[in-house]
Order: sequence, then structure tokens, then C-alpha cells
Amino acid sequence: MTRDPVSPELNRGPEIRSEGLTYRSAGVDIAAADRLKRRLGERIRELFGGLPARSFGQFAGLYPLPGLPEKILAATVDGVGTKTRVAALLGKFDGLGRDLVHHCINDLATCGAQPLFMLDYYGTGRLNPEAAEAVIAGVAAACRDWDIALLGGETAEMPGIYVEGEFDLVGCLIGLVDQDSLITGAGIGPGDIILGLPSDGLHTNGYSLVRKVFGLDLAGATGTLNRHYPELGQTLGEALLRPHRCYLNEVRRVRRLVKGVAHITGGGIPGNVARVIPESATAVIRVSWEVPPIFRLIAATGRVSQAEMFRVFNMGVGLAFITDPDRAQALLRELPEAFPIGEVVPAEGDERVKLLHD
Amino acid sequence: MTRDPVSPELNRGPEIRSEGLTYRSAGVDIAAADRLKRRLGERIRELFGGLPARSFGQFAGLYPLPGLPEKILAATVDGVGTKTRVAALLGKFDGLGRDLVHHCINDLATCGAQPLFMLDYYGTGRLNPEAAEAVIAGVAAACRDWDIALLGGETAEMPGIYVEGEFDLVGCLIGLVDQDSLITGAGIGPGDIILGLPSDGLHTNGYSLVRKVFGLDLAGATGTLNRHYPELGQTLGEALLRPHRCYLNEVRRVRRLVKGVAHITGGGIPGNVARVIPESATAVIRVSWEVPPIFRLIAATGRVSQAEMFRVFNMGVGLAFITDPDRAQALLRELPEAFPIGEVVPAEGDERVKLLHD
Repeated sequence: MTRDPVSPELNRGPEIRSEGLTYRSAGVDIAAADRLKRRLGERIRELFGGLPARSFGQFAGLYPLPGLPEKILAATVDGVGTKTRVAALLGKFDGLGRDLVHHCINDLATCGAQPLFMLDYYGTGRLNPEAAEAVIAGVAAACRDWDIALLGGETAEMPGIYVEGEFDLVGCLIGLVDQDSLITGAGIGPGDIILGLPSDGLHTNGYSLVRKVFGLDLAGATGTLNRHYPELGQTLGEALLRPHRCYLNEVRRVRRLVKGVAHITGGGIPGNVARVIPESATAVIRVSWEVPPIFRLIAATGRVSQAEMFRVFNMGVGLAFITDPDRAQALLRELPEAFPIGEVVPAEGDERVKLLHD
Repeated sequence: MTRDPVSPELNRGPEIRSEGLTYRSAGVDIAAADRLKRRLGERIRELFGGLPARSFGQFAGLYPLPGLPEKILAATVDGVGTKTRVAALLGKFDGLGRDLVHHCINDLATCGAQPLFMLDYYGTGRLNPEAAEAVIAGVAAACRDWDIALLGGETAEMPGIYVEGEFDLVGCLIGLVDQDSLITGAGIGPGDIILGLPSDGLHTNGYSLVRKVFGLDLAGATGTLNRHYPELGQTLGEALLRPHRCYLNEVRRVRRLVKGVAHITGGGIPGNVARVIPESATAVIRVSWEVPPIFRLIAATGRVSQAEMFRVFNMGVGLAFITDPDRAQALLRELPEAFPIGEVVPAEGDERVKLLHD
């Protein structure tokens, strides 16, 4: 293993002139991460056979309170990815905290939990106190808005670990749900309907590919971000920094109407809807909604394939509900902005999710 | 803000020939971090005036369960610092998980909490699946050993954020404590005795300074780490990778005998004992114990001042108990390896902790 500093400028090159960009060419290997996850899953299952924790909700881990098994703690940990780098290029640090908190809230909401408290971690090579204060104050403000206590945090200065000027932002959110309010995904099967709620842009996924597509690791990146795009109605930077939307209120309103909820993050619709579909079924997603302009701009600029776009980005769907047809109608009345995106059918091979494009 | 990659090799230079190394010259500015913490503390207090969370324990945040205020959740988030880099140089990744879990357990133990579940975060620039698996499997094994559920985790591949070959490891640990078992630090005052428990080496603090002292960011670092030191009775690398000691069982045995507990991490004895001493008092620490050889080797090699050594390293004391003289005697009977390190006196100026060297 070399100890040389990374030079991101060297990573960009001929791909853009050849076959279109992929997440892997941008330095993110989802397949390798999935293999790692499977191996770790096996090792962890072996170790933890007898413990009370459950994580069938998958977007959040579940832990029945000792002595009070009907009260279940839910927990999730996540980061905001390299959206940090777009924020740093524009010197706009105050929105990242909201991104982090909303991402974590949505993960917890998938199981019906009410968020209680958060802890944050800010790691960097050399502390930039102004940036750190703006970021962490943003976490605090977003927590306050959702009645979440910011219970702890750690700021770590680690020379030689982070690239100069870069940082990582991680949050851990803990919530509580009563056993009888738990959304488990149980009972999902053929005949069920899948409904989506619109996203507000990229949320917090796919930024490494975006950086590569628009050359954001090269000189002149700030100029690129400040360019106004008529099809976006705003600058590229404004579109990319739109905050991760929070779906807590929407989930609260329809929790009695749904069997399962998927938060569309890294892995896109196929990767995340798959987490709530049983092995006996396949989710067929019909891409009949209008994919928002930011995603079309990314695909065109980087000549990114449709399959890759759907694997990396949310493509306009931030949250998916799975329920039976009757309750789907009730859900659409309750949340008029929801729209059908597909249905559950008997298993078709190994694929848990199949995308059909109009 | 520059976007150039950091070159740690360039950071080392004339300081070693002049006045001795400091944590600041190694790239870690504790004073700047403290200023940031104070400013954030003010902003967060303003935001959260009305919320139920408390963090007087300080090493852990406290959150009374809604509807069950006598049951208090305790939470902490922390990392293992640049001990990751020493591990990477030696290709020994399996101990870092234990470091992380023990560090977090000790933080929770200071308030008397029983750990329940953990979430981990592994961030890197380019995923090295073997290193990641070894590290995270180490987290899982340490959790299992202490009956902690590993409830969730996130592995983030973030090109351009981390230096090539480096990673960060963060853990969040949640525990539970009954109101009447809470160790709060209440009642600490003049006349109280401070007792220490031995540390097992550096635990997880001060590694950036150690890297600078021994030139571990330079070519030949592996050779340096593999050198056998007679005064250590082992190689430098073995001494540096000794796992963070876990004090959970010791705290359980004496929790009824103590008023306050301090986990000696970043900031050393002065920085951490200060967190449990009220403003009306000063802790006087008499350094009469034998400081372990690894710390004397670091001080001599880097010509690090005594004051700086005590501000950066635990100097042989991993946990401190504060209690009244009667119960101190009982504690010493219960934990024969504990030893007196000081006493609490009426406040002497603004210093919460004063070090006296024999």
C-alpha cells in the first residue's frame, strides 16, 4: 500500500472521450462495497446469533429495550458523501448539516420510528474553525427544527488522513418506535403497488460521479458551479447543493397505510427498493415519471448510461412506499404529490427490482 | 482554501532540531479545537434550551426516555485518531476495532451506563476490501466480547477526501442507566481524593505527535516500527498498537464508591479530570507514579516538554475516580491496582487541574 497523497486531478481523463462515465471510473466501486457488505454480514451473523438486535428494517437497526420489549430503539449512521466538496468549492457550509440530519431521519422513518437524539462526527486533516462551526451549527439547527436533541459530537483533527481542505461529516441518529407501530415490510408480495415521493435533487448521493462529469476536481470548478443553466432555472452549484428532503411528516401521515418504506439513497431505486422486497417477489418499476432536469443534464454531460444513472442517483424519487392497492388509493388521497412507480410481481429470476423504461 | 493534496512528508522539518516537538507542530491544534467547542457550545445551548437532553456527564450525552424518565439513554461518538496510520504501516488492522469499542465503552462507563449497541462508520478514499473487512470484523468481535449489539454500520468510499491508503474509523455507542445508578460528579469538592487506574500504553490518543517524533510519515517508517527497544521489551510498533484498555468491569465494581469518573483521552489528565471538577475547586495531581517507558521514550526522542506530554498523552493513567477519603480506601481494597494521583482543593485561580511533579 503506498502512502503517497492522492492527486484527484490525475483521476480524470480519457473516459469522458470514450464510452461515458461510470461511478466506478469516478472512484466508487459499488460492487466491491456490496461484496464487502455480504462477507461482513456473514461474519457478523455468526458472531451475534444470540443477541436481541434486529435489523430487518435495514435502513435502521432495531433494538428492543431491555425489560420493555414493546419499546424498540432504532438507530442509523450515515454521512453526506462528497457533497462536502461541492460545498467547500462554493464556501457554502451551512446546508450540509441539514443534509445529514434529513438523510438520517429518513432512514429511521422507514421503520416508523420517531427520532430522539443525534450525535455528529466531523473529521478533517487541519481544522478550519469557520467551516467546522458553520457545518456543525447547521447540524444543530436542523436537529432543533425536528425536535431532535444534539446529544454529542466529536471534532477530530487528523493530519495526513484527509486531503488538504477536505473533511468528512457523519451522523448517528437514535429513535424510538412502539412494537405495534413498527413498519416491517412484512406481507409485501405480488399485487402490491409501489408509490414514490419526489426528491429535491440529488440529496446526498452520487457526488463523486458528478464531480467527475463536470470536472469539479479541476481548476475552474467554481466557475462551472456558478454557471447558470436555463434548463435548471438556477446555477449548477445551486442545483447540486439543494438540501436532502426530509420525509418524516409524510411517513407519519401514512404509516398505517403502508407495508414497507424505502429511502432512495446510494444504489438508487433498484438498490434500495430491493431491501424491502422478499425473495419470492420482484418489484417492477415503470419509469413513466419525468426525470428532473438535473439528472438529464448529468447524463448528457457525462454520457452516463441510463442503467448507471438509475444505480447511482435517485432520479427524482426520494422515498418509495409499498402497499396493497386499496390502501395505495388512500395514500394517494393523503399525499397528493405521491405517484405510482411500479408494482410487485412473483419473483422473476434473481432480480429483486426490474426497471422498465417507456 | 487550497484544494491541493496534502504532503505529510513536507510537514516534518527543523522543529526537531530546535526546541522539541509539540502537538501543534504535528498538525493538531488543541487550543483551536477548544475555542471551536466553546463557540459551538454557546450556539447549541441557545438552540436547545427546552429539550430534555443533558450532558453533564460530558463523556457521554444523556437522554431520559420519553415516558420513562428514570431510564436514561447514554450515548457517545468517537474515533481512533491516526492510530489507523500506524496500523496501516504494519498491515495490522484487526486491533483497531477493539480500540474503538473500548474507547466508547469507557466514555459511557464514566456515567455508570451499561452499553447496549454500537454503530460504526468506515470512511476511505478508495476501498481496500481486505483492510476494511479486518477493521470492521474487529469492531464486531469486540462488541460481541462485551455483549454489545453491532446494530449498523456504514462504509463510505469518498475519492479525493481521504489521502491514498488512509481511512477513518468512527463509532457511536448507546447505553442505558437507571437514574439512581447515574454517576454525575455531583458533590465533588475540596477534600476528595483522586485515584487512577493504569493505562495500557497510548490507548487512542497522541498518534499524530508520535508519527512526527519517530518520523512515521517518512520513508523507512516500517523499519522504525519494527525496531526492538530494550526499555520497552518489545518493538515500537507493538508498543504503539497495544489496545485501548476497557475499564467497564472496574467501573461496575466501584460505581457505588465514586462521585465522578474521568476517561483520560485527548487533553490528557488535565483536560479530562477538569471535566468533572466544579468551578469552585481545583484538582491537584501529584505525579508520583512511574510514567511508563513508552512515554519517556517519546519525550526523549522528540524532546517534547513535560507539560506537552501531559496535555497530549495519558502518561500511564487511563481512568480517574474522584471520591471522598473513606470510600477511596474501600475503592483501593476493591481495585488493588488503583493508586492515588491527587486531591481536590478549594479553587486556585482559573485552573481546574494543577500538575505537581516530584
